[in-house]
Amino acid sequence: MADNPPPSQPEAAAKPVDEAPPSASPEASAPGAEDEAGPSKKALKKAEAKAKKEAEKAKRAAEHQAKQAAAKAAAGNTEDLAKDNYGIVTPKTTVSVERIHLKDVNESHLGQTFKVRGWIQNSRMQGAKMAFIELREERNWAIQGVVAASPDGKPVSKQMVKWIGGLTLESFVLVEGTLAKPLEPVKSVRVSTFELHITKCYCIAPGPEVLGMGLVVAGKPVVNFDDEDAGGAAAAADTAAALEQARKGVEAVSLDNVPSASMATHLNNPAMHKRAPVQQAIADVRMATRKLFAEYLDSQGFNQFEPPCLIGAASEGGSNVFGMPYFDKQAYLAQSPQFYKQFEIAGGRKRVYCIGPVFRAENSNTPRHMTEFTGLDLEMEIEDTYTEVRTMLEQVLLFIFRGLSTRCADQIALIRTVYPSEDFLLPEPGHEVRLTFAEGQALLRAHGPPEYRNVSDHEDMSTPQEKALGALIREKYKTDFYVLDKFPEGARPFYAMEDPENPALTNAFDFFMRGQEILSGGQRIHLPEALEARIRKKGVDPKSNGIKEYVDVFRSAGVPPHGGGGIGLDRVVAWYLNLPSVHLASYYPRTPKRLMP
Amino acid sequence: MADNPPPSQPEAAAKPVDEAPPSASPEASAPGAEDEAGPSKKALKKAEAKAKKEAEKAKRAAEHQAKQAAAKAAAGNTEDLAKDNYGIVTPKTTVSVERIHLKDVNESHLGQTFKVRGWIQNSRMQGAKMAFIELREERNWAIQGVVAASPDGKPVSKQMVKWIGGLTLESFVLVEGTLAKPLEPVKSVRVSTFELHITKCYCIAPGPEVLGMGLVVAGKPVVNFDDEDAGGAAAAADTAAALEQARKGVEAVSLDNVPSASMATHLNNPAMHKRAPVQQAIADVRMATRKLFAEYLDSQGFNQFEPPCLIGAASEGGSNVFGMPYFDKQAYLAQSPQFYKQFEIAGGRKRVYCIGPVFRAENSNTPRHMTEFTGLDLEMEIEDTYTEVRTMLEQVLLFIFRGLSTRCADQIALIRTVYPSEDFLLPEPGHEVRLTFAEGQALLRAHGPPEYRNVSDHEDMSTPQEKALGALIREKYKTDFYVLDKFPEGARPFYAMEDPENPALTNAFDFFMRGQEILSGGQRIHLPEALEARIRKKGVDPKSNGIKEYVDVFRSAGVPPHGGGGIGLDRVVAWYLNLPSVHLASYYPRTPKRLMP
Repeated sequence: MADNPPPSQPEAAAKPVDEAPPSASPEASAPGAEDEAGPSKKALKKAEAKAKKEAEKAKRAAEHQAKQAAAKAAAGNTEDLAKDNYGIVTPKTTVSVERIHLKDVNESHLGQTFKVRGWIQNSRMQGAKMAFIELREERNWAIQGVVAASPDGKPVSKQMVKWIGGLTLESFVLVEGTLAKPLEPVKSVRVSTFELHITKCYCIAPGPEVLGMGLVVAGKPVVNFDDEDAGGAAAAADTAAALEQARKGVEAVSLDNVPSASMATHLNNPAMHKRAPVQQAIADVRMATRKLFAEYLDSQGFNQFEPPCLIGAASEGGSNVFGMPYFDKQAYLAQSPQFYKQFEIAGGRKRVYCIGPVFRAENSNTPRHMTEFTGLDLEMEIEDTYTEVRTMLEQVLLFIFRGLSTRCADQIALIRTVYPSEDFLLPEPGHEVRLTFAEGQALLRAHGPPEYRNVSDHEDMSTPQEKALGALIREKYKTDFYVLDKFPEGARPFYAMEDPENPALTNAFDFFMRGQEILSGGQRIHLPEALEARIRKKGVDPKSNGIKEYVDVFRSAGVPPHGGGGIGLDRVVAWYLNLPSVHLASYYPRTPKRLMP
Repeated sequence: MADNPPPSQPEAAAKPVDEAPPSASPEASAPGAEDEAGPSKKALKKAEAKAKKEAEKAKRAAEHQAKQAAAKAAAGNTEDLAKDNYGIVTPKTTVSVERIHLKDVNESHLGQTFKVRGWIQNSRMQGAKMAFIELREERNWAIQGVVAASPDGKPVSKQMVKWIGGLTLESFVLVEGTLAKPLEPVKSVRVSTFELHITKCYCIAPGPEVLGMGLVVAGKPVVNFDDEDAGGAAAAADTAAALEQARKGVEAVSLDNVPSASMATHLNNPAMHKRAPVQQAIADVRMATRKLFAEYLDSQGFNQFEPPCLIGAASEGGSNVFGMPYFDKQAYLAQSPQFYKQFEIAGGRKRVYCIGPVFRAENSNTPRHMTEFTGLDLEMEIEDTYTEVRTMLEQVLLFIFRGLSTRCADQIALIRTVYPSEDFLLPEPGHEVRLTFAEGQALLRAHGPPEYRNVSDHEDMSTPQEKALGALIREKYKTDFYVLDKFPEGARPFYAMEDPENPALTNAFDFFMRGQEILSGGQRIHLPEALEARIRKKGVDPKSNGIKEYVDVFRSAGVPPHGGGGIGLDRVVAWYLNLPSVHLASYYPRTPKRLMP
């Protein structure tokens, strides 16, 4: 066990040398490749990349075997006095000192010996008697480990140093070490003012010979969101190989010039994509958003509930719905919990919210779209006016934004090192920005780009129009968060309540972040006669499947006036952090082209 | 507006007279109808029921018209001095006194005038000058309202009393009234030591002429879970009509003898099903369970995450999975978040949990099965032994059980008035009951019913076997909650870790409540070679779609030892409360026969 060979494929260079170009294929960082290459060209590239990769692999395997033999021969020469202090973990392995987590390390621990578990994110030999490793726990909590051969061969032998220095990157190890002060702060790790003097090291789960995507690349910003980027994987592997050469001092490479990988490569390497500290920080922000939403609504007397995903009729806009065989029937996947939120109100709950998946069968391959995403939805009784709903939604979002900036300050700072963003501008408390749809259009006509000089007050806006208006509002009101209220009747679904003073308008609104819609909401029709009339007006048959059952609920018992809204969690996270795609904010993005892993 | 007719179809009798039999069809309460009648028989019944219902409806409409005319004639005779104090709500309606919620009413409010909103759950006239109503807000928070004609006709006129007394049941109203002490406590409502002397009353949303299912019936225990109970709806409507006759003093009926409605009738009347205080109390318990789960795990350093519902391969047991067309591909609905929990661990998260829908395409029509239900899942790194996972799962469930008994004491008491249950027995802290699977089988062989004298240690248990063992364990250990550990290899899926000391067993367990399984969990295989070997051993091709991608994740980077478990939320709630079906614990139960509403 003691004479395990040094690994041959670690990746990131500990001391990168500038100027030398990376040896990776230029394709990984080439912008604008989206939708240009036809499938045959792509297939060709893929085949080429594969062949190249296979050749590299064979070469590396041969190198590896040669080294293994040499190491074995060398190790055989001296007795290893430290042989019980390292190796592959076994059921008999015991490290009985106290466990410590890197985020808890402080001055009081200096000189004490602890047990640490983590991933080797970098390693290098210094001569034959010393090795440095970087050991990472969660997010970017990492520390430098130093292992130096003892003069008398224990507790650390030269063989042990060599074995540790040769562990493959992203191996998961169990280490015993004493906390000490480094000569100078170790800038490459977060726990920079401490280091661990290693006395034992066991490998619990080895990393691979070749990383599909190394941590350095995983931590670079994604710029290519083409999910058919066949060359991306090969490029990422090439980059890994180049960095490995650099680490071994064979070929110099600059970390600054390492190309980023495409979104496809990230998603095809889920473990490494998720190990990147930036992705863990985004996940933290996402979960904090979800929790802040629930926390605020719980404090306002809301009841959480669970709407179904499987529904019996495609009643809410039939074209973008997924259908499926269901025993002797047909089932659909819910596009929103709209009807079910209303059923809860009809069922006597005064305020409800739900958090869960919703589905859209839209064949849109853009960084703004997914086929499955998470909705944050609420619905509430109205006592006097629909603006109670608008205020509740404003307040829950402001609570989220303010909560994120304090609870996730650390994560936001980390994310900005990869995806730069300006502070998300909020209105002063009590000065929330609300324009009517007509006022928004007037602003666009008066001060927007020339193509919007004639926009109508009666038609919904396009995405570019929304963004142009967002820029005007940011300039005028110094906020990235605002409401457009009183949407025209034609732009809203059949359940939207018309403005009693002007039936061409509705008591319905959209909310925006950085010029992009994140919420639709408003008052719903609660009287069955009015509901049926508006359904007819929209050209829908009130007796049709699903619609009849919906209207019947309002007929079956008196339902109070109510309203609500639905927030897209993925968009809130992505636009708050100014990420280039909602796919980066999602755990497992689903698009027309992707269902795996 | 002032001369609205009295409604003709209120339902619950205020002063039921005993002995007279209910006029409802006997079918609604007839047990054992499940799966006996063929479709043609059912269709016949349905048609009969429909015809009967239509006839009733026509009769009632005629009666209603006649009364309307009479009331109009009568009302025309005197000027109505209270005409602005009641009627259908309009945009001009204002009630400017302070709003109060019934749960907040206390002695300090006596003599003060408040605004209350709620549903009329009962009403009766006393002579021509006085009416009593029961006004309900949420769950079982209801109060008696009294309206009596003022000697000079204002603020309350005789017409106003008549109008209020005639409002249809489950109308949603806005009331102004003064809080007073009733002569004696009003036993039929929860706020029994106060009453509201009504001075204004406006109808915001009228109830229907005929309730599909009245509140009295909705609050009775469901005993018939046949979802094709065609006669149920007619029976429930008949019951409503009978109670209405009783309320008007036409025909005496006993509330004690009112038959319960079938589950089908409940689900076809979602507003009334959900308004029943027992259902709102069950919903509260469900949400408290969800929250307690998250709360405990948050305190233990877990990260919540969101697995996808849409997946690209039916990799986890192919037969019970829903498939669907997905653009040019095939998609499936996730049966569990198993793979994704493990990907999060591989992705560097030490402890994760998720709460969300999972799907099983099982054609089982039992009170224990649904096609969509909510999973509470966790996965965590193992430091030393898989029992860390077992302990975490035990502790989170004990935290839930103890939390429910304090946080939901009120709701549990209410539920027990409808669905009686004995206290859920818990083990003493530190004396959790854990048997090995083999010990459980030995207990069954030694003390179980004769048919289990030869049960094997190597085969999984049947449901009756589990229940028999549960009874033996309750008797011996005085607990309804226990663990069976070390399941035989053949009874566990390919990702289960074999016991290193005996590969015929696994480091895997099930948890039980009242003899029924609510959780499966254990240690997973974290090394790719071992995983692939076990996949082959199970007769699955490790290169097959979905499986290959799964194993590749463990190959792509070192993954620490880990384990976890999945809890069925619906079952935990149903068995904790000893409900006769998980369908009662679900918001919108999905079964092979039901996708609506």
